[in-house]
Amino acid sequence: MKNILIVGAGLSSTSLIEYLLKHSDENHWQVRLADMSLELAESKIKKHVRGRAIKFDVFDKEDRAKEVEKADLVISMLPPTMHTMLAKECVKQRKHFLSPSYVSPEMQILDKKAKERGVLLMNELGVDPGIDHMSAMKIIDKIKAKGGELLSFKSYCGGLLAPSCSTNIWQYKFTWNPRNVVTAGQGVATYKDNGQYKYLPYQQVFAHPIETSMPKYGDFEVYPNRDSLSYRSLYDIKDIPSILRGTMRRPGFCRAWNVFVLLGCTDESCVMHDSENLTYRAYIESFLPYDERSVEERFADCINIGVDDPIMEKFRWLDLFSDKKVGLKEGTPALMLQRILEGKWTLDPDDKDLLVMQHQFVYKQDGQEKKITSSMSYEGKDQEHTAMAYTVGLPMAIVAKLILQSKINLTGVQIPIDAQIYEPVLKELEELGVYFTEHEEDCE
Amino acid sequence: MKNILIVGAGLSSTSLIEYLLKHSDENHWQVRLADMSLELAESKIKKHVRGRAIKFDVFDKEDRAKEVEKADLVISMLPPTMHTMLAKECVKQRKHFLSPSYVSPEMQILDKKAKERGVLLMNELGVDPGIDHMSAMKIIDKIKAKGGELLSFKSYCGGLLAPSCSTNIWQYKFTWNPRNVVTAGQGVATYKDNGQYKYLPYQQVFAHPIETSMPKYGDFEVYPNRDSLSYRSLYDIKDIPSILRGTMRRPGFCRAWNVFVLLGCTDESCVMHDSENLTYRAYIESFLPYDERSVEERFADCINIGVDDPIMEKFRWLDLFSDKKVGLKEGTPALMLQRILEGKWTLDPDDKDLLVMQHQFVYKQDGQEKKITSSMSYEGKDQEHTAMAYTVGLPMAIVAKLILQSKINLTGVQIPIDAQIYEPVLKELEELGVYFTEHEEDCE
Repeated sequence: MKNILIVGAGLSSTSLIEYLLKHSDENHWQVRLADMSLELAESKIKKHVRGRAIKFDVFDKEDRAKEVEKADLVISMLPPTMHTMLAKECVKQRKHFLSPSYVSPEMQILDKKAKERGVLLMNELGVDPGIDHMSAMKIIDKIKAKGGELLSFKSYCGGLLAPSCSTNIWQYKFTWNPRNVVTAGQGVATYKDNGQYKYLPYQQVFAHPIETSMPKYGDFEVYPNRDSLSYRSLYDIKDIPSILRGTMRRPGFCRAWNVFVLLGCTDESCVMHDSENLTYRAYIESFLPYDERSVEERFADCINIGVDDPIMEKFRWLDLFSDKKVGLKEGTPALMLQRILEGKWTLDPDDKDLLVMQHQFVYKQDGQEKKITSSMSYEGKDQEHTAMAYTVGLPMAIVAKLILQSKINLTGVQIPIDAQIYEPVLKELEELGVYFTEHEEDCE
Repeated sequence: MKNILIVGAGLSSTSLIEYLLKHSDENHWQVRLADMSLELAESKIKKHVRGRAIKFDVFDKEDRAKEVEKADLVISMLPPTMHTMLAKECVKQRKHFLSPSYVSPEMQILDKKAKERGVLLMNELGVDPGIDHMSAMKIIDKIKAKGGELLSFKSYCGGLLAPSCSTNIWQYKFTWNPRNVVTAGQGVATYKDNGQYKYLPYQQVFAHPIETSMPKYGDFEVYPNRDSLSYRSLYDIKDIPSILRGTMRRPGFCRAWNVFVLLGCTDESCVMHDSENLTYRAYIESFLPYDERSVEERFADCINIGVDDPIMEKFRWLDLFSDKKVGLKEGTPALMLQRILEGKWTLDPDDKDLLVMQHQFVYKQDGQEKKITSSMSYEGKDQEHTAMAYTVGLPMAIVAKLILQSKINLTGVQIPIDAQIYEPVLKELEELGVYFTEHEEDCE
């Protein structure tokens, strides 16, 4: 019998747990689900005979050592900053370790020791990062294998609303961490386009969205992510002339969001005076120079539009000019905005999310330029079985199975870019309804 | 005989040294000018019998102790971060200390000990900060004394070009630290307007310049400084409904500068790839999305103007679209921009600078609102005797004299907001040609 330790029973663990429990009998697995909250862990195990809910504090050194000792494989669903603590214990006790988060510098440091001890620390094993790596590498390897020269790689991903509930004027609600949405794009977005390095400051990131469309789902727009360039070394495509990674939104979102960026509503550096007593209207007025005109007029003027511009409807729909109170103490502009948006952008019980991902490759072979477009979309089933939780959890679960079946021979700090990972994982994901449709055409 | 130690013989020390040497005979002063470069110090002392140039390393503990011991008063003209080292020695040896820089947190810590030992550490004793404090406090105290209620305080200052040489299309050259000019406005500008707190992010700071005009010099525009609110406690005007401090430029400057801000050319956070080989044109193109149009067209499009907009002339004048090489290794966007601007904005030998300062007060007395406008301007004489050096150096020199004549009884960390400072200093500044003209009118 093999023991799997999952640490963290939050929303994103649901599908992971269900998959592992479902396959536990045939594989002789015992699934231990450890969380600060025993009730939460119990609610996910649902008294499954091969499952066990445990109250667990990852900061407790003894607890940590004891639980890792019992396990054959450890899966960390902790917040990103807490993985390394657990990974260190795994290296010490020679247990393989999985996480869905980006490789942190602290994690990277463990690489040498993990290799020495024959331990695999596999990270970035969710959807983005995760499925993006696997699906991109599959095509990159294919193009390279047939001698094609990669000219351009663009990769987009977004967490949105299923069309049935994507009915508000923004066509958006929070389907993941709201804070990350409010502060997205801060810093300088770097990418490469036709051989030129590009640097887009925050105030430009949402100003020039790229248009794209998806099978079945129609039009989207994309804003560039902060870091596209590092994917050149990750994917071993160092000399590619164009590379861009971006985030997908429904058309019109970026232009409206850019208003918040330009006004300073997403700033995290200052605390607003008397923030608990500000109304939505007073909050917005805080960013507008004072004069005799109405808040609406000054708002429109500040963003160089007329008060009757259709975009204003998006802000009116958020009640931005109302006398509602925000009611947040010591609020930064960003925290205040998040609170305002949460009033309108929180999922209703019946809402379903939509996960969309698209890669676009241009390559040259035998003098002909060709374009491959590879698209994936997945709709959530309900509030617990969201598309996000499903697509984050399944790659983790499948790789867990492969490791316990001794089908993976990697060690050290890894991300899923190796064919021995992406081949079986993408294949099983497809059987589970998460698949890419590929379209190839000649460029003119 | 009294010994004055001046540490730092740079440009801003010129007028200070000349004043002290000029008055050294009648006051029986010995002026010791200490600098890393003996030649520089000697060139400023010009063999004056009461002057002495010394090679000096402020980081050398023994040197520091020895020189401070010889002095009755120490004047630090060092870079801002280096004052505290010298001030500590002064507290230890009970010597008064002057600097033109903002009170740093490290300086503020010395307050208690300085008071215990009867030592004055007077900072912010240049022009801005310095003359601004003195001239503002004089009027604030006057309004308070006659029972007026302060409603608004706006205070502007700028280092510009004398009209005779303010002939380029930007009406601007670097008259002070270029780096500070390139990165000015970063962060969030906070101020208060008609009882409302205002928060302007970087991308709005240059977008709404305030218009003003000066006697003799005509029109200017003003962008808000980062911190206006802290002046409420400094000047003891806690409940004032409107307070704003700003920087003066010639009309049209802000709108054009804002283009650099919006494009990301002033970013200091990333190093540009292969920066030493970028041409001006390629540098600018780095911030523009790629398409088939010319750099000029995309540039204009990115800032929402037509290619024939008159503002484009300002950028063409900078050779921004030329194939000149920037020639800077490891350049951030801001460093690259500074290098480009230095090609055009460096003072010619005949150029003269202009220092302008204006305070606007609105107060209420006996039911009537009144407005006082107080304006000061001073033109430099030549490259050595700039307006900046003159107005920075003289307040220091005059306060030095007052201290050595035992006419000041303050101790601890201070800034010049006390009548015992501003009365005699403003009076003597006026005799030396640096004076404010005051205009009072009833508001409608």
